[in-house]
Amino acid sequence: MSTLKKMFAVVVLLLTVTVNAQIDKVEPPFWWEGMHHSSVQVMVYGEDIADLTPVVSKATVTAITKTENPNYVFITIDTKGLPAGMYPIQFKKKKKVVATYNFELKTRREGSEYRKGFDSSDMIYLIMPDRFANGNTDNDSMTSVIEKGDRSNLNGRHGGDIAGVIKHLDYLEGLGATALWSTPLCEDNDKAYSYHGYAQSDVYKIDPRYGTNEEYVQLGKELHKRDMKLILDYVTNHWGLEHWMIQDLPTYDWIHQFPGYAQSNYRMSTQMDPNASEIDARYCMNGWFVPTMPDLNQSNPLVVNYIIQNAIWWVEYADLDGFRVDTYSYNDKEGIAKWTKAVMDEYPNFNIVGEVWLHDQAQISYWQKDSKISAIQSYNTYLPSVMDFTLHDAMSAFGQENAGWFDGTIQFYENFVNDFLYPDINAILVFAENHDTDRFNQRFQNVADYKLAMTLIGTVRGIPQLYYGSEIGMAGDKSKGDGDIRRDFPGGWNGDTNNAFTASGRTATQKEYFDFTSKLFTWRKNAEVIHTGKTTQYIPQDNVYVYFRYNEKATVMVVLNNSKEERTFDLNRFAESIKTATKGTDVISGKTIDVTAKAMTIAAKSSYVLELAP
Amino acid sequence: MSTLKKMFAVVVLLLTVTVNAQIDKVEPPFWWEGMHHSSVQVMVYGEDIADLTPVVSKATVTAITKTENPNYVFITIDTKGLPAGMYPIQFKKKKKVVATYNFELKTRREGSEYRKGFDSSDMIYLIMPDRFANGNTDNDSMTSVIEKGDRSNLNGRHGGDIAGVIKHLDYLEGLGATALWSTPLCEDNDKAYSYHGYAQSDVYKIDPRYGTNEEYVQLGKELHKRDMKLILDYVTNHWGLEHWMIQDLPTYDWIHQFPGYAQSNYRMSTQMDPNASEIDARYCMNGWFVPTMPDLNQSNPLVVNYIIQNAIWWVEYADLDGFRVDTYSYNDKEGIAKWTKAVMDEYPNFNIVGEVWLHDQAQISYWQKDSKISAIQSYNTYLPSVMDFTLHDAMSAFGQENAGWFDGTIQFYENFVNDFLYPDINAILVFAENHDTDRFNQRFQNVADYKLAMTLIGTVRGIPQLYYGSEIGMAGDKSKGDGDIRRDFPGGWNGDTNNAFTASGRTATQKEYFDFTSKLFTWRKNAEVIHTGKTTQYIPQDNVYVYFRYNEKATVMVVLNNSKEERTFDLNRFAESIKTATKGTDVISGKTIDVTAKAMTIAAKSSYVLELAP
Repeated sequence: MSTLKKMFAVVVLLLTVTVNAQIDKVEPPFWWEGMHHSSVQVMVYGEDIADLTPVVSKATVTAITKTENPNYVFITIDTKGLPAGMYPIQFKKKKKVVATYNFELKTRREGSEYRKGFDSSDMIYLIMPDRFANGNTDNDSMTSVIEKGDRSNLNGRHGGDIAGVIKHLDYLEGLGATALWSTPLCEDNDKAYSYHGYAQSDVYKIDPRYGTNEEYVQLGKELHKRDMKLILDYVTNHWGLEHWMIQDLPTYDWIHQFPGYAQSNYRMSTQMDPNASEIDARYCMNGWFVPTMPDLNQSNPLVVNYIIQNAIWWVEYADLDGFRVDTYSYNDKEGIAKWTKAVMDEYPNFNIVGEVWLHDQAQISYWQKDSKISAIQSYNTYLPSVMDFTLHDAMSAFGQENAGWFDGTIQFYENFVNDFLYPDINAILVFAENHDTDRFNQRFQNVADYKLAMTLIGTVRGIPQLYYGSEIGMAGDKSKGDGDIRRDFPGGWNGDTNNAFTASGRTATQKEYFDFTSKLFTWRKNAEVIHTGKTTQYIPQDNVYVYFRYNEKATVMVVLNNSKEERTFDLNRFAESIKTATKGTDVISGKTIDVTAKAMTIAAKSSYVLELAP
Repeated sequence: MSTLKKMFAVVVLLLTVTVNAQIDKVEPPFWWEGMHHSSVQVMVYGEDIADLTPVVSKATVTAITKTENPNYVFITIDTKGLPAGMYPIQFKKKKKVVATYNFELKTRREGSEYRKGFDSSDMIYLIMPDRFANGNTDNDSMTSVIEKGDRSNLNGRHGGDIAGVIKHLDYLEGLGATALWSTPLCEDNDKAYSYHGYAQSDVYKIDPRYGTNEEYVQLGKELHKRDMKLILDYVTNHWGLEHWMIQDLPTYDWIHQFPGYAQSNYRMSTQMDPNASEIDARYCMNGWFVPTMPDLNQSNPLVVNYIIQNAIWWVEYADLDGFRVDTYSYNDKEGIAKWTKAVMDEYPNFNIVGEVWLHDQAQISYWQKDSKISAIQSYNTYLPSVMDFTLHDAMSAFGQENAGWFDGTIQFYENFVNDFLYPDINAILVFAENHDTDRFNQRFQNVADYKLAMTLIGTVRGIPQLYYGSEIGMAGDKSKGDGDIRRDFPGGWNGDTNNAFTASGRTATQKEYFDFTSKLFTWRKNAEVIHTGKTTQYIPQDNVYVYFRYNEKATVMVVLNNSKEERTFDLNRFAESIKTATKGTDVISGKTIDVTAKAMTIAAKSSYVLELAP
């Protein structure tokens, strides 16, 4: 284990600290009055800090926990019923106070507990912040972190930042997005590839190349002004090797050690397989994702409590509307359920979506809260939302213009068959791609397939998620490296010759992609029937897939023709869904279609989203 | 609707009937005392029979049900508490008895109620009786049925019969089979393709080309002598167009009419899809399988009761040990559950395996009794056994010698992951092929792959099922027609030059197939650890799949090397399963292997089934 690193620089975060050489870090740096999680375990880090006796005269200390590393002490303070204010923590050596930290209980934001998370009324726009827009060129390279800006390096830091995002929120709003999921923004001090942000080195601090904690708070405020939501990408499973605590572990078992590194087998099905060997299940869960990301041991109560408090701290601090949780199913099963429950207990109307990248709906739905399937193993994650990765798998349908028993749009149809396995079907994320997958526009290099995919994502049950840039036709080849599916958004950098953020800056092709997307998702914002309506689907015929979304007030008929031929089909077959409607108006073209006719005709590779009316 | 057919020929079945011109059929022809299903609904068929008044003086008639067809009357007799004996049914016109049927309550076989069905201790051998052995050439063509014997016709009647099966039961016993599933033996009077037997024309009568009802009873006795079991292939979903009741329907809605024929869409997922349209769900369930098989309407109480009584009648009459139910998931959902429950209520220890040919474990397990998944829709089939069709799908692994994330033996591994979805995992049928699929030996034309497949089928959880002839290397190409996967067993016909039924008659290749199969399944007969033991499986590495079956007394280590290379692998990885064992003895070769060694080596495309010992 490495020796204590010298960290005598100004501790930027700790504004209220009585600076004292022996206290390097206090986490959480402050807390709030009136929290459900009122028993706050304050971790204090400093050379031989465990040799001192902490005293909090104005509050009850219920536990002082020391570890094998004398540089850490965990002080559990009962804040229940305490008013906002300062609660100094004094550190005594014998009877002399040798250090003090002014721990503050802040006034909680009104209604904080009942904040409403993102839901199926939202459209989530996913960005890689380094690659979206460079709003502040002064922070492209910073002295406190290793990797410097280098836009010529596909896998390097390109300079995108929070200021750039804030600058383009009107663009997002115009696209029809109502929520922003940015991949992690906390400090990632890796020497290379740090732009992806999943190897965090400080989970209480925004990476200086993205901006400051205050700018992140500002981002939330700017979103809320526009009635949009902010989703933080939380990483419970691992930190980066450069994390200061990894450099000086509080306990040997803060991370999973074999000793040191062992690779995960990534076989997530070991987590529910009743036949799985212990060794396989353990290596999946406890093995490291990559050698640069030590795997956190959430079965250690100190660790799980640390990440619970950190998560809650960010919700309160940045006024968040949700989490996306990375590699959810690689965590300690019991630990991640504890973490999720703690966050949801604090914010009962919040939302958390877990990355559960499996290819079987029973296995995905296993991870959603109150799953009847996981209940077979007496397990409950308390996770409100999961991701519809099998729908993502079904995107291959767009390459299948000749329908077969299993080919073409039947893939979508069959995906929705298993909706009954999910305890909350409206809470699942639907997407054509994300920052880890092939880019849709690379797989299917034409706007027709893109429009079909967006029609699907925009009208089926669940929470649609778009990946930045696809809405202007961006492509990128994963086989060239992840960097290529995370190219810079054109117009995000000074001097970009193509500025796709503005209507006038877009090429004709970009305009066709954007206008379709914007029209569809702007319509969706108020289409309650899509947000919470029921679905009736019909077995695709000749690769034409028809389904209806309906509630008591409205019915929408969606027609996807995935074949390369114009199709004419019998309308009578849909009588039970069309009911007494006589016409349907396409939300994209405005065209009106007589649904009392015998048949309907639809052009090759095109769709209708028809609002039915009497 | 067709007019009444004249059926004045001798009614062979109804031995106890007082022959009367006006009574053509009585079904069931007799019943038993002491039955759980004691309220027996006797259907009487005859010209204008409904105009007469039925009287049963020695028993209580609780209902007389007439339909729109005057040629039928359903007389419900309460037999509860009645002793065995004759209960004449008199038919009166005004006050005169014009016809009498001597309905008999037979003495029930002792212990009949608690008969034990087939289970995971069994190995089921599946035959197509027309293609197995011709024991009686006199019945190859019969006057009472249309299609005559023609062995030169791939899709014709070849002459195999019950006498042929009885003749070769010693062969089956020697192979290690403990149960026989024959495809349907009841009369199928189609003009062509009648050999498959699923278009039945009389469900109370064995097809005369197979033999007589008495011979079928004899088959059961001969099996029981050898401690083997008899499984009847029951068809609840449809009958043949030539069925006498179809020719003169009791009620218009005895079958599903559109009117007349409409094809099923075969999309079985409509049966659990919460989003399915009513029209799709209905056409799947109620549409006909093929134009020659009218779809029975099990939502009609008369129909469901008719097939319940017919099923129970066969169990009692032929002393059956189980049913295999054809196209289980195409039936009326509520109707088939009612049928299944009625049979299981009559015989609580019986077994029924349903053909649920789906490709998703959640969807298959949905149909097993007490499924937590089907409970989401408040549905319970009461069906004890389903078929592991996804394991069958995984057989493609044998063509994948280069393992990938989803290729090779990982397909088996991933199949068993979802075992937790099944309420009773030991009750599912495991098979490499059946009479409707490609022949395994056609897909993989070598004995090595066959041996690997048998090793798997013979050692995993569930009830293994073999398909006749594969054990001597039989192949057959489904693309040439179903007839080709149902070729004649060599040696089953007089004059066959190759007689694979006897050791001396087998070719060297047939011998290699047979000896392996026989050795494995003869061993399995007493291998309780395989029948009911638990499983621990390990993620395949380099296409070598290792799993253990264990209970408190024994442990078996199975190693499948599906690669084309000899493999040497670390044994320490399996420590949690090997425990204190020091050696393993292969049940096939007798070879002993040191399991305390660092590594184990296994030849290309081969397997070990090692009984571990201290």
